[in-house]
Amino acid sequence: MTHTTAVVLASRPTGEPIHENFRLEARDLPALEEGQVLLRTIYLSLDPYMRGRMNAGRSYARATELGEVMEGGTVCEVLESASAMFAPGDIVLAHVGWQTHAVQNADLLRAIDPGRAPISTALGILGMPGFAAWVGLTEIGRPQPGETLVVAAATGPVGSMVGQIARLQGARTVGVAGGPDKVAWMRELGFNAALDHRAPTFVEDLGAAVPDGIDIYFENVGGAVWEAVFPHLNDFARVPVCGLVSQYNETRPPAGPDRSHLLMSAINTRRLLVRGFTQRDFGATHYGRFQRDVSTWFAEGRLKYREDVVEGIENAVDAFLGLLEGRNFGKLLVRVSEDPTTGEPSTEA
Amino acid sequence: MTHTTAVVLASRPTGEPIHENFRLEARDLPALEEGQVLLRTIYLSLDPYMRGRMNAGRSYARATELGEVMEGGTVCEVLESASAMFAPGDIVLAHVGWQTHAVQNADLLRAIDPGRAPISTALGILGMPGFAAWVGLTEIGRPQPGETLVVAAATGPVGSMVGQIARLQGARTVGVAGGPDKVAWMRELGFNAALDHRAPTFVEDLGAAVPDGIDIYFENVGGAVWEAVFPHLNDFARVPVCGLVSQYNETRPPAGPDRSHLLMSAINTRRLLVRGFTQRDFGATHYGRFQRDVSTWFAEGRLKYREDVVEGIENAVDAFLGLLEGRNFGKLLVRVSEDPTTGEPSTEA
Repeated sequence: MTHTTAVVLASRPTGEPIHENFRLEARDLPALEEGQVLLRTIYLSLDPYMRGRMNAGRSYARATELGEVMEGGTVCEVLESASAMFAPGDIVLAHVGWQTHAVQNADLLRAIDPGRAPISTALGILGMPGFAAWVGLTEIGRPQPGETLVVAAATGPVGSMVGQIARLQGARTVGVAGGPDKVAWMRELGFNAALDHRAPTFVEDLGAAVPDGIDIYFENVGGAVWEAVFPHLNDFARVPVCGLVSQYNETRPPAGPDRSHLLMSAINTRRLLVRGFTQRDFGATHYGRFQRDVSTWFAEGRLKYREDVVEGIENAVDAFLGLLEGRNFGKLLVRVSEDPTTGEPSTEA
Repeated sequence: MTHTTAVVLASRPTGEPIHENFRLEARDLPALEEGQVLLRTIYLSLDPYMRGRMNAGRSYARATELGEVMEGGTVCEVLESASAMFAPGDIVLAHVGWQTHAVQNADLLRAIDPGRAPISTALGILGMPGFAAWVGLTEIGRPQPGETLVVAAATGPVGSMVGQIARLQGARTVGVAGGPDKVAWMRELGFNAALDHRAPTFVEDLGAAVPDGIDIYFENVGGAVWEAVFPHLNDFARVPVCGLVSQYNETRPPAGPDRSHLLMSAINTRRLLVRGFTQRDFGATHYGRFQRDVSTWFAEGRLKYREDVVEGIENAVDAFLGLLEGRNFGKLLVRVSEDPTTGEPSTEA
């Protein structure tokens, strides 16, 4: 019998999650049935949306139950197969969550070609975050040449792709992130302006960086950046709302006054388009176009990315808590076991 | 020399407008130049958007200057013509504002065919309010058969058209207005449910009227109706924001807590589409389709409308102040001079 080591939801957080909301435990795995494969997890993706799954309340996906394995996208290697679709050694995109091994139906898996790009990118620029960036721009933001786009968390996997794709589409791009290292990386990513939201002059810096106003604000953060952006939104600006990570730990609405009327009034008079979305709402047609576009740009060397890799499932909780505070720098991944395509982590480490 | 009697903006209101913000005055009109016509106003349209024009601040159109004639759409008769486009006696759609006469360039006017429909409908179902309803539904709301639509001010010119068009497109429609007479008229208009927002049970009544939630909320009021609607918005609901008449007289944001975060969070998790628009943002192609659709429905007897007609330019201010409080019942018009197609008001009146 095979075992998995899993991180399960031990209790629901009130506000900021703490270690006690999670529990690491060993579990037996069932024997393979026809059509199933046994997987070992190589990379686990950690993403802000997971905070929402920890709540009992209504969201765009069902809540994780207490005692259930934390949800998450993974890159796995097939160890055993009772399916004609995959053979041992195959690398697949799966969604086994925060655990070292899993038994899965083969038809839930997607093959990854290790020759096309590093396999970890299936969780980054070529995966869910990349698709969220692409579809939010393609379907909602629709940058036009010469327009100004602002995105926060701009060194993260979604924000960095938003900036690079919008620039490829002719927009002027302004990235926002925290600290000088991230500002330097935003410049390498090609942002026309790179702002540090921790700078005491951030609000003025943003104003200076958008002399023609803002036509697209790709929202994945909320909070102080949104407050700074809001006055600069031009008539007919588009706001794809992909996430609001700065708000996920809020336990109650902020103190007044109630500015929801001002927001609606601005939507009215400036004819703003504000639309929430998740990449899961868009189907195979969009996904195929995304893969074609982004694979082409990647092969042409026009897309950069950065990963923040944490070793070992036992460090997933720490890494996730840091993600909610913006402590990661690049796409946050847990390397749960050795990547056979790179040999990392080296066994000497 | 011809004169006009005009209502001009005397001062800017703080909050609710008062009589002293307006001034009735006689003005000389210039002599006709080539390409111009002299008009007498028959009907003046009074609409909530005019409140926005009285402010100095940024809105979707420039502010009316102090001393300037209040803006407004009008149906006029051509009295004299120095243009080949129009002859004396022609009825035209113009935008001469709150005044009895005007000299206008003929190329700013649109001919009205008195044989097609009552000429006043060029300011109602066949005019700006009808176009706002049609374009907000066609471009943003997009009702699908079986979906639930809610609209407030549902006996007004926009709301009544929204309900009727959405019903023709197969939606289930819920209208909201104030008082039993308006509820009775909503039933005649064909709303599937007709709710009185003044009823102490309004919040519960709304919940009971939308057992499957709300797919489209056509926003032209804001305030308490929006508060009641918000919890019922389904995933992927659309909110065309046409106006917020209940907020136009607000001088400051309401007391806290600040619910703008909750609004953004709902947009995020429920993937709402909230988009402001004015009918002026849409061009001739849309306008032509609107005229074709609505003229056809009207000719087939499938559209009802109601007008609230006030006699005389000297009563325009009173009527407008009432409009902002919802005291009108149907499309609010000022009959500035006799309608030659009906003879109203009779000279005996």
